[in-house]
Amino acid sequence: MQGVLLWFERCCVRSRVLRFVDINLRGIGQVMFQDNPLSGLIFFAAIGWGAYSSGMPQIAIGGVVAIVAGTLTAQWLRVDSTALGAGLYGYNAYLVGLALASFLTPSPALWIYIVLGGIVSVPATLGIANMFKTWDVAALTAPFVLTAWLFLLATHVFSTIKGSGLPSPTEIMMIGPAAANPLAFGEFVQGVLKSIAQVFLKSSVVAALLLLLGLAVNSIAVALFALLGAIVAVVTAHVLGAESDLITGGLMGFSPVLTAIALGAVFYKPNLRAVIYALVGAVFTVIVQGAMNVVVAPYGIPTLTGPFVLATWLFLLPRLSFEKAQAT
Amino acid sequence: MQGVLLWFERCCVRSRVLRFVDINLRGIGQVMFQDNPLSGLIFFAAIGWGAYSSGMPQIAIGGVVAIVAGTLTAQWLRVDSTALGAGLYGYNAYLVGLALASFLTPSPALWIYIVLGGIVSVPATLGIANMFKTWDVAALTAPFVLTAWLFLLATHVFSTIKGSGLPSPTEIMMIGPAAANPLAFGEFVQGVLKSIAQVFLKSSVVAALLLLLGLAVNSIAVALFALLGAIVAVVTAHVLGAESDLITGGLMGFSPVLTAIALGAVFYKPNLRAVIYALVGAVFTVIVQGAMNVVVAPYGIPTLTGPFVLATWLFLLPRLSFEKAQAT
Amino acid sequence: MQGVLLWFERCCVRSRVLRFVDINLRGIGQVMFQDNPLSGLIFFAAIGWGAYSSGMPQIAIGGVVAIVAGTLTAQWLRVDSTALGAGLYGYNAYLVGLALASFLTPSPALWIYIVLGGIVSVPATLGIANMFKTWDVAALTAPFVLTAWLFLLATHVFSTIKGSGLPSPTEIMMIGPAAANPLAFGEFVQGVLKSIAQVFLKSSVVAALLLLLGLAVNSIAVALFALLGAIVAVVTAHVLGAESDLITGGLMGFSPVLTAIALGAVFYKPNLRAVIYALVGAVFTVIVQGAMNVVVAPYGIPTLTGPFVLATWLFLLPRLSFEKAQAT
Repeated sequence: MQGVLLWFERCCVRSRVLRFVDINLRGIGQVMFQDNPLSGLIFFAAIGWGAYSSGMPQIAIGGVVAIVAGTLTAQWLRVDSTALGAGLYGYNAYLVGLALASFLTPSPALWIYIVLGGIVSVPATLGIANMFKTWDVAALTAPFVLTAWLFLLATHVFSTIKGSGLPSPTEIMMIGPAAANPLAFGEFVQGVLKSIAQVFLKSSVVAALLLLLGLAVNSIAVALFALLGAIVAVVTAHVLGAESDLITGGLMGFSPVLTAIALGAVFYKPNLRAVIYALVGAVFTVIVQGAMNVVVAPYGIPTLTGPFVLATWLFLLPRLSFEKAQAT
Repeated sequence: MQGVLLWFERCCVRSRVLRFVDINLRGIGQVMFQDNPLSGLIFFAAIGWGAYSSGMPQIAIGGVVAIVAGTLTAQWLRVDSTALGAGLYGYNAYLVGLALASFLTPSPALWIYIVLGGIVSVPATLGIANMFKTWDVAALTAPFVLTAWLFLLATHVFSTIKGSGLPSPTEIMMIGPAAANPLAFGEFVQGVLKSIAQVFLKSSVVAALLLLLGLAVNSIAVALFALLGAIVAVVTAHVLGAESDLITGGLMGFSPVLTAIALGAVFYKPNLRAVIYALVGAVFTVIVQGAMNVVVAPYGIPTLTGPFVLATWLFLLPRLSFEKAQAT
Repeated sequence: MQGVLLWFERCCVRSRVLRFVDINLRGIGQVMFQDNPLSGLIFFAAIGWGAYSSGMPQIAIGGVVAIVAGTLTAQWLRVDSTALGAGLYGYNAYLVGLALASFLTPSPALWIYIVLGGIVSVPATLGIANMFKTWDVAALTAPFVLTAWLFLLATHVFSTIKGSGLPSPTEIMMIGPAAANPLAFGEFVQGVLKSIAQVFLKSSVVAALLLLLGLAVNSIAVALFALLGAIVAVVTAHVLGAESDLITGGLMGFSPVLTAIALGAVFYKPNLRAVIYALVGAVFTVIVQGAMNVVVAPYGIPTLTGPFVLATWLFLLPRLSFEKAQAT
């Protein structure tokens, strides 16, 4: 694995085109915090499979169009080249492209919209990162969530862009207890795996397994935290009585997966206390997911990874140190 | 009074259990900015009376469960011990417990929910305090409001937690002028006192008198500002034509009470100009209360002390100095 | 022109009354970033004409009452005299006055409301400016938007203040394609000009021409960016299929006009790259306008210049430098 990566890096040094590809693959990898072109490539394959198998190839294309628009914008804005090279100006654009292509009907106007979304995601990323640098906290996927929410909300007033896959604006209603069925083992496994796939807005078990593989090639720990986050989320959502269809579709678990990775394996050095903190964070993210489902319902838009952003920011802002005190 | 406190402090030094009680009592006191275990004890008695007399003892218990969960979490997170000892990691947890137990139906799931709420309130407090330290402004009750809003909103999608006391989600409607009746003296007094009790989500005159006593044992000035804030709020709400039931129930006045205390007696050194500023802040808080009532209506959740937080932040962020220029 | 301004400045030095007038005129000018009493006077005439010609003279008076209340409050709070003298504590108050008088029915309570709004706009301006100074970003019209939203939302629960001109709270509905007609040349010109007038909540072509004149007497570049922003906005809104009535009424373009001025001529030194960035910002602001129209619809309040604030903050927060690298 390491050999392949070294060989690829040598190729990139000599070719501007390959370097551009490398940056974009790392951007796709950064959706799950992986600064690794191989992870990005496997994630890309996962999305491709998910899009193809659901008969919506435009989703995979939308992601590519948006991330290319984003990377070109970042280069034009002369952003910091280290961060650019690590894919940090790509993951929000990629997610914007996936989201717009997932929820909107293909049309010429949609492609303009996706390009614009990719472009705007870059100032959004720079701006939000600048703000949160004040507290040593990362922008996470907030630039994606904000940009995609604005673009999706606006479709309600633009007649050329139609929201085929968007939920309808609805009144808030309590779910009936009948909607929360017992969770059989098969549904449990499905809920866990789809929670991972839904990070990229996919509902495919094959995509989930590819995503886990893409994580594992870079970091076994991250793959484990993704799984752990998904399991904790499915169990919590079930115990609290969330709608079974949401749970098995992975829609209560994708934000907790990201929270578990972020708190457990990325921003805190893992030890027992940090792991407990990360799992509490994942449980809390399930509640935030429930709350945000209610908040967005009247607007007919999805929460996207908003619950992950809110919960993880709240758990990162204390800037806790879970490491042992250093000997002086 | 001072003697009793000194004796209690000596006992706490020798006993870890008593110190734990002391921290939690100060936490209850901090709901109204009082770092004083006696104030906390009297507030606790006020809540107990209010809960008992309205046939909902679970409210008093919910508060205790949440604050104990919060204090243990803060200790586990090794927070700053001075702030911990002053009760600053307890008041948000206590309010979360009161709010969840006030608006939700008792059930085993509810108690898990309350414990979780108490736990989460601690990173929320640490995180929001860290953010606002940037501008020398305190977190106020924002961690409570955010945590409780998320937990209450989420009940709409969780079938094991039922919101018995929650308002129903409603469309926004203009109130009819008939709903704003003339305010007789008895209703005026009731509105003023219940505005104080509603700081702790109680609608009891006895509780209000106990709360004033709890303030007075630590600071007569604070008790006066609480009363002044309540009077200003009731008069303003009445002049603007708010619904009489809201006014006499104290529901237009509890946030202004906190604003008046915060601006008048806690964060600015009181002099004539600071007092005027505090009263303008209290008047403004009535308008923010009206606005937030409208904002939360479609979601079927209460504003909690959100109007206090927003108005007081806005009036603290200028970091004005009302003191005379110091001689150099 | 310069001579007139110098003569007026000499008069102001000798007269406290004239200086007060000067500060307030500059405040009106700052609505469009012009620290120039002559610009302010021409803007004032534009509002006067717009108010008079639409049979609502109370709007012009509301603006004056609020800005006087605001300036007096700022003086009482002893704010920084340079910023005060540049009108930076007046423009938000002025806009609050215009907005409240535009959307609410005249009554004695309304005038109290307007005075209160003007007063509160000052701590709001100080507070928000303090927050965003952390990132070298200006408060823009955020204090106006926040204050006016709160005061307008609250009218739904206050029976003495009636919202005659306020939109009704509505469910979110997709617009039909029929509502987005072809845009004839006359409508295009009207849409462009009214986009400029709507910055001051006016729908008058004469007011628009006066506003352009008021900009031009201080800066031809700013006047050009205002026009350019309006043209870009009308074309973008039309291409995306926004409702024709909104476009020709200037309601899709007033925020982009401000974005274009802010990014193109105020906060970045203009060169080709900065101009492109500003125009992308203006296009993005159209989408934000669409999104915010949807967000506020259930609440029956207007977006005001919220879309300008959000989009421009996002494009300013990256703190990009479009200037050539300086020789060392």
